[in-house]
Amino acid sequence: MTSGRTVRGRATIMDVARAAEVSRQTVSNVVNQPSRVAPDTLARVTKEIARLGFRPSRAARNLKQERAGAWGVELNSRGAGRLGSVLDSFLVHLTTRSRRHDAHIVPFTAPDHETPIPAYQDLLASRIADGFVLTDTRHEDPRPQWLRDNGIPFAAFGRIWDDPSHTAWVDVDGAAGVEAAVRHLAERGFDRIGFLGWPPGSPVGDDRRTGWSRATADLGLARADWQATSAQDLAAASAAAGPLIDGLGRGAALVCASDVLAVGAWVCLTERGWRPGLDFGLVGFDDTDLAAALRLSTVRQPLADAADRVLDLLGGEPSASGLLLPPELVIRASSSPRATAPTEMRHT
Amino acid sequence: MTSGRTVRGRATIMDVARAAEVSRQTVSNVVNQPSRVAPDTLARVTKEIARLGFRPSRAARNLKQERAGAWGVELNSRGAGRLGSVLDSFLVHLTTRSRRHDAHIVPFTAPDHETPIPAYQDLLASRIADGFVLTDTRHEDPRPQWLRDNGIPFAAFGRIWDDPSHTAWVDVDGAAGVEAAVRHLAERGFDRIGFLGWPPGSPVGDDRRTGWSRATADLGLARADWQATSAQDLAAASAAAGPLIDGLGRGAALVCASDVLAVGAWVCLTERGWRPGLDFGLVGFDDTDLAAALRLSTVRQPLADAADRVLDLLGGEPSASGLLLPPELVIRASSSPRATAPTEMRHT
Repeated sequence: MTSGRTVRGRATIMDVARAAEVSRQTVSNVVNQPSRVAPDTLARVTKEIARLGFRPSRAARNLKQERAGAWGVELNSRGAGRLGSVLDSFLVHLTTRSRRHDAHIVPFTAPDHETPIPAYQDLLASRIADGFVLTDTRHEDPRPQWLRDNGIPFAAFGRIWDDPSHTAWVDVDGAAGVEAAVRHLAERGFDRIGFLGWPPGSPVGDDRRTGWSRATADLGLARADWQATSAQDLAAASAAAGPLIDGLGRGAALVCASDVLAVGAWVCLTERGWRPGLDFGLVGFDDTDLAAALRLSTVRQPLADAADRVLDLLGGEPSASGLLLPPELVIRASSSPRATAPTEMRHT
Repeated sequence: MTSGRTVRGRATIMDVARAAEVSRQTVSNVVNQPSRVAPDTLARVTKEIARLGFRPSRAARNLKQERAGAWGVELNSRGAGRLGSVLDSFLVHLTTRSRRHDAHIVPFTAPDHETPIPAYQDLLASRIADGFVLTDTRHEDPRPQWLRDNGIPFAAFGRIWDDPSHTAWVDVDGAAGVEAAVRHLAERGFDRIGFLGWPPGSPVGDDRRTGWSRATADLGLARADWQATSAQDLAAASAAAGPLIDGLGRGAALVCASDVLAVGAWVCLTERGWRPGLDFGLVGFDDTDLAAALRLSTVRQPLADAADRVLDLLGGEPSASGLLLPPELVIRASSSPRATAPTEMRHT
């Protein structure tokens, strides 16, 4: 939040809070309602206020404005009743990091995912949040424009796909992650590398597919027909992976747009009696528990860093452009043609 | 919340909110700051206030007490950086259901999981939450007593294991879930049914083991040595499951305290070339994505209902005793000795 940052060298409420090792709220209490504060804390904070030359008018003004000090986050479980591995982890990191950003996180759900704005309005009306962290950004997403039109602060985990004029976003470079997976498989000796993705139209899925096209072209391994698509569902993924795997043949490899798709392919491999890594290379995306359990190589998103950067943006960090973070390749048995690779390795 | 409930037939702020189809906050605004309310909303709410005979002093009092209208929930990711399937889903349901309970949810994390109380104090000091939803209740849990001693409202998802005098909890009857799994396997013709659990001392794990002991005793299938324990980790589970599976032999079955343990056993089965369900029965617990992906039978917790009941307790619903909810057995291929059982079935 802007009030936590030093302006022209003047001490802020956060400077006092840090020096006295208390929360910003406690400094506010010392200034506005000293009777609520324990005597030793009061003494310590007052001493730091004097030492740092903090002028408490800023804190008083903040209180008067009744800022909530919290950001709303819509939990979109797409009917599954759970966030899933990536958003679960992002929310944990966002919550953990919000402490050092002197903010809170308020999750909420929209009864109608297709018409989310009323739920955003409700949260603002309840005055528990000052703005929003967007996730699940997508094509024809009505939220960024509505938020900007109404002057409501927000930052997104995910590109604002349809409008480059929005710069308050942080995302993970999915194309770079898939590209790293392809290059890794090529280095391990796989010379036929296919891609199992989501149907075109999903911006995240299309981005990941781009990485495969780019890397296979660079390596002289491009073959347009070595790809297939499937919805994010295991049975569908198995059905789509089967013909692709048979077309590629034993000794080839497959990069998938998600771990769910990769597990679909993994099931096909075990049905054929092919050992992942030894008889056929396989890399997923997202580093879910599923991937760890089946020793699937995968691409891990830097979710703690992403959460930090989103909170920076909400805190007033200027953003001339969005920020693409590089993901990390996690190498496990499924991409190791030698059987002797049980140890987990990480390549950024 | 108590203010949302009708006392001696008098109309409450929630009655007005429902009748006028607005939020409780909007009714408060109409009463206290009508200039903030859009004219048509103002007219509609005022009409309902008059029609229902609502006396707005209650709303004014609530505002004066500065209730936050929110409950804190500690996110405990046990160092994994994510909640995992069960708590992810519980949080989504808690957030979804909080709308109809006219409350918000504020997640937070404790920097030191072993000493959580300071994080609870911090959240109260920030005045963004009025009380707490506890999860991950455990032996020697310092939180319930501290909360009660300080008069802070709370309700738990999970029994208050060490103190039966606490009744504000909702939990899932894990023993009943495991018992249902054992009976199901016996009905399917498995007469050697083992148990892979967590090491003794975990109250949830001990509870689940009880279900196995009880059911196998009832069915005349009890054998104390048909069990093993493992930490909640795939590699450890595989190592523990191997000798147990070999001891039970082909054609036997295993119930596990979690899906992670069951996947460990599943890996052992595939290593031996035994087909889950056909050559060896297997049932997990928690209905994770992992279980769905591998067509593992499992036990599903009624998390939406649990979230609702926890919010009821926080809203002032009296609780003479804790509430144990029955879980649901989800039958998939891994417990079907006939190959023709691909369809998912649910047994409560």
